[in-house]
Amino acid sequence: MNSTEISAVTAANAELYAAFEAGDIDRMSVVWDPDDDVVCVHPGWPPVSGRGRVLRSWSVIMANTVYIQFFLTGIVARVEGDVAVVTCEENILTGVADDAGGLAESARACATNVFRRRGSEWRLWVHHASPVIAPSGPSFS
Amino acid sequence: MNSTEISAVTAANAELYAAFEAGDIDRMSVVWDPDDDVVCVHPGWPPVSGRGRVLRSWSVIMANTVYIQFFLTGIVARVEGDVAVVTCEENILTGVADDAGGLAESARACATNVFRRRGSEWRLWVHHASPVIAPSGPSFS
Repeated sequence: MNSTEISAVTAANAELYAAFEAGDIDRMSVVWDPDDDVVCVHPGWPPVSGRGRVLRSWSVIMANTVYIQFFLTGIVARVEGDVAVVTCEENILTGVADDAGGLAESARACATNVFRRRGSEWRLWVHHASPVIAPSGPSFS
Repeated sequence: MNSTEISAVTAANAELYAAFEAGDIDRMSVVWDPDDDVVCVHPGWPPVSGRGRVLRSWSVIMANTVYIQFFLTGIVARVEGDVAVVTCEENILTGVADDAGGLAESARACATNVFRRRGSEWRLWVHHASPVIAPSGPSFS
């Protein structure tokens, strides 16, 4: 594990959220690993398996998202051989299209993103995001 | 990736849930990787990082669990070098201690469990479990 690897993995992780923010399914398609053993868990959802189903799920979510912006905190990237695991907290600002004229809402989630090395690229193998319900983190320190 | 590896990873995954069901923090301690870069997301929680904090979180959860039983479905194990990723659905039966005399409750969650190879053992590196809120899986097939 070196700083160049960590930078590349962190950039791949950022691109996942940038593609979502841009609502760009072509960029999202490049983010994901080409193999069919990919899995994606959207917050509150059961797992979606397989490249086709995963990308269709993103298309549906993007089509139903007026505006979304991610502020990632607590990003930790780990590399072990050709696999990288990134954990982060997603602080989310969304635009809500309602009759009153589009208010903003915020939400908090956390994610585990597992990447696989493909040549010089890191491609997303597993994305697992879940809602953070606790108002602030319990402390076990 | 061969069937012996997949069997070993699947057994390591089963032991996580067996240790929890038994309320045995010593077994849970062996399940987890010895390094300090472990992360654990309990359903609805923010990430808990570091071996000490992760094991303390399990101690607290076990102390507050009267009875729990897991029925795992959709288990898929993948191995890439010295890293394994298991995804599964957790169908949970819990005993609820209430004034009326302990009714059972069921819950549904899904998990991503990332293991690291340590000699001949597979140790848990990242556990991410989240509630499944959708009544049944959306279909994108």
